[in-house]
Amino acid sequence: MRMVDLIEKKRDGQAHTKEEIDFIIHGYSTDEIPDYQISAWAMAVFFQDMTQEERAFLTEAMVHSGDTIDLSAIKGIKVDKHSTGGVGDTTTLVLAPLVASLGVPVAKMSGRGLGHTGGTIDKLEAIPGFSVEITNDEFIDLVNTNKAAVIGQTQNLTPADKKLYGLRDVTATVNSIPLIASSIMSKKIASGADGIVLDVKTGAGAFMKELSQSKELAEAMVQIGNNLGRKTSAIISDMSQPLGFMIGNALEVKEAIDTLKGEGPEDLTDLCLTLGSHMVMVANKADTLEEAREMLEESINSGKALEQFKIFIESQKGDPSVVDNPEKLPQASFKESVLAEKDGFVSGIEADHIGTAAMVLGAGRATKDSVIDLAVGIELHKKIGDFVKKGESLATIYSNQKDVIDSKSKVLASYHFSSDPVSAPTLVYDIIT
Amino acid sequence: MRMVDLIEKKRDGQAHTKEEIDFIIHGYSTDEIPDYQISAWAMAVFFQDMTQEERAFLTEAMVHSGDTIDLSAIKGIKVDKHSTGGVGDTTTLVLAPLVASLGVPVAKMSGRGLGHTGGTIDKLEAIPGFSVEITNDEFIDLVNTNKAAVIGQTQNLTPADKKLYGLRDVTATVNSIPLIASSIMSKKIASGADGIVLDVKTGAGAFMKELSQSKELAEAMVQIGNNLGRKTSAIISDMSQPLGFMIGNALEVKEAIDTLKGEGPEDLTDLCLTLGSHMVMVANKADTLEEAREMLEESINSGKALEQFKIFIESQKGDPSVVDNPEKLPQASFKESVLAEKDGFVSGIEADHIGTAAMVLGAGRATKDSVIDLAVGIELHKKIGDFVKKGESLATIYSNQKDVIDSKSKVLASYHFSSDPVSAPTLVYDIIT
Repeated sequence: MRMVDLIEKKRDGQAHTKEEIDFIIHGYSTDEIPDYQISAWAMAVFFQDMTQEERAFLTEAMVHSGDTIDLSAIKGIKVDKHSTGGVGDTTTLVLAPLVASLGVPVAKMSGRGLGHTGGTIDKLEAIPGFSVEITNDEFIDLVNTNKAAVIGQTQNLTPADKKLYGLRDVTATVNSIPLIASSIMSKKIASGADGIVLDVKTGAGAFMKELSQSKELAEAMVQIGNNLGRKTSAIISDMSQPLGFMIGNALEVKEAIDTLKGEGPEDLTDLCLTLGSHMVMVANKADTLEEAREMLEESINSGKALEQFKIFIESQKGDPSVVDNPEKLPQASFKESVLAEKDGFVSGIEADHIGTAAMVLGAGRATKDSVIDLAVGIELHKKIGDFVKKGESLATIYSNQKDVIDSKSKVLASYHFSSDPVSAPTLVYDIIT
Repeated sequence: MRMVDLIEKKRDGQAHTKEEIDFIIHGYSTDEIPDYQISAWAMAVFFQDMTQEERAFLTEAMVHSGDTIDLSAIKGIKVDKHSTGGVGDTTTLVLAPLVASLGVPVAKMSGRGLGHTGGTIDKLEAIPGFSVEITNDEFIDLVNTNKAAVIGQTQNLTPADKKLYGLRDVTATVNSIPLIASSIMSKKIASGADGIVLDVKTGAGAFMKELSQSKELAEAMVQIGNNLGRKTSAIISDMSQPLGFMIGNALEVKEAIDTLKGEGPEDLTDLCLTLGSHMVMVANKADTLEEAREMLEESINSGKALEQFKIFIESQKGDPSVVDNPEKLPQASFKESVLAEKDGFVSGIEADHIGTAAMVLGAGRATKDSVIDLAVGIELHKKIGDFVKKGESLATIYSNQKDVIDSKSKVLASYHFSSDPVSAPTLVYDIIT
């Protein structure tokens, strides 16, 4: 088999066999196929797409390019949740204890944030003492004992995907549905999940700005998951503004605690219940989505979910008293209000710019090596549809530096106003199963 | 400017500016832009094409990536002829003295053969003593004195094209009209021609097998030439069988002599007169194509063309007596006939396989470093449309080895027969000016 012939085949719109996909991914992993052939091939894939079968083959080949996590020692159906990346997305912090409280094992491998997007591990580390530095065996034991645990990503998970993504990033071949879908799904499958619930973001602050594209990506991922024997469903949710009110690590922990108490923001609560009920369904713990949702609501109302959060924190060496005393979380030294400059209805909040404003404060990483400040961030007071009077506070900036002019102007510039009333955006656009 | 943005721009179907094309070609030449970005870009060009303007910018950028030959010291309009590559294509050997005999300066930079295609320099070197190892100044002096001279390709002509072609060859991006057209035209323009006559081959033995593709390529090249101020025209000619009867270096010199005497094969003679009259027109030496053709015919009939060939040979240290005594050309030790195995009308002769059969004998190079045998080759006796009886000779193999089973079976396999009469193929399909 020669790579040049396979590039030509894809260029001419033909489908690859499993053997061909394996040849490509194995050859690239072992440096036998050079970057310049893979980038030409990726561009051909961009134009010619891949069949459902090819996408599944590609995902599998990337899964087998590195280590896979064996979670078979965990009893029950292990369900993983994945978000395509948003701003102020605190769902994992809420869902892990919430779903675990119903006996669904949550074995979560998470990452750190980069750029304007936060990472679950950073958020958890805002809890004093909390550690994800545990061995695989400890991880499995914790899930078996407490139903929920979070571990950092191992180095050698889907190395072919990592290498391919790095190349796509500099060759304008990122934005290809089959390549994005197989990249995400290979990581989820290598992480050992039996079932996967995907939260595909759509709108101005999302990677996929158009609903039709988000839908196409969601369908592609669900098909790959189901083709590879993983029960998979996807929720397409709004990212035309940040989720909830808080952006920043300790601030989002506080918001997660509120949500687990039943006192969280409406959109965050609703999305957690929607994603959670799908996770419960995938785990076979309820017969209908309605039943699953009621079970989750009951867990919040009874305090069971909050209790589960404390157990989860304690089991990973964190201080569970932050749940009852959130002031024990890292606190910023300065607070500054961002005031509206005119009257109007909020018509849009550019989530990625809000994310960048938080990053500038130190809540996120500009580069992989940046050191972050867990205390800082932004609290939004107004969201799409709200009426604001000139001089009213749109948001509060929590900072450890006095000068916040840069973030302040970024927050202000993120807000768009209309003189006519605006309705709040739809939260969940579609569900693909 | 970032290359990744330019790849994305082309991927999304937008046209590059001159500055962008210069950035790409300069960056690639100087190794500042890596192969993997150029190959992804070339694949995007394959799918999204280039405007006429972009093609001209690309050609110019490649011309300026290396040395350019300054032929301004040669009086008159310098006309170059280029063929997209055929088998048994002896036109340059005929056209150089023929056109020069009318006072058109022919300053020809030529190459050696590779694979199944022959090269003009190899053919000329079959003439004892003939040398293309001359300096640029000698070259210019020879053209001014004798109207025709041939020199080998300099090393540093269009290095960006050389590098890009090497990459395209292994990334399935060769077959792109804008990239082929700019590659060919950049070499012609860097070689210093004022006017260019292109012979674009079409049919089974050509690089472009479909007439529509050949036409598209011809139009693309003519447009580039005219856009860059070079009077350019293109003839689309048949390569559904080899041109003339001879394939092999000394054999083709003999055939060129015959043609200059007015005793050559009909197809070769006709194509030379067609290409030649366009060269004469481009050089402003005639008012109409008919007049140009008559002038060329008159030069053949009067013996002027043959005399010019002798002068040309002598001026480059060759032995001009081969023209009157062709037995002084290298002669093969063995001759063997290829006999027809059944009755029928010849319906096709696969030119590339005939070329390979000649290469196997030693007439061509399997790799760049192969040493060739100037004496050997193949003489065809039957061409498309001819009726052949079983046992009649289809071709003669000229060889310096006794065992010619391999070439013989290749020649036999190249011939296709029909029981119904077949008409000879059209020789010139179209002319683009």
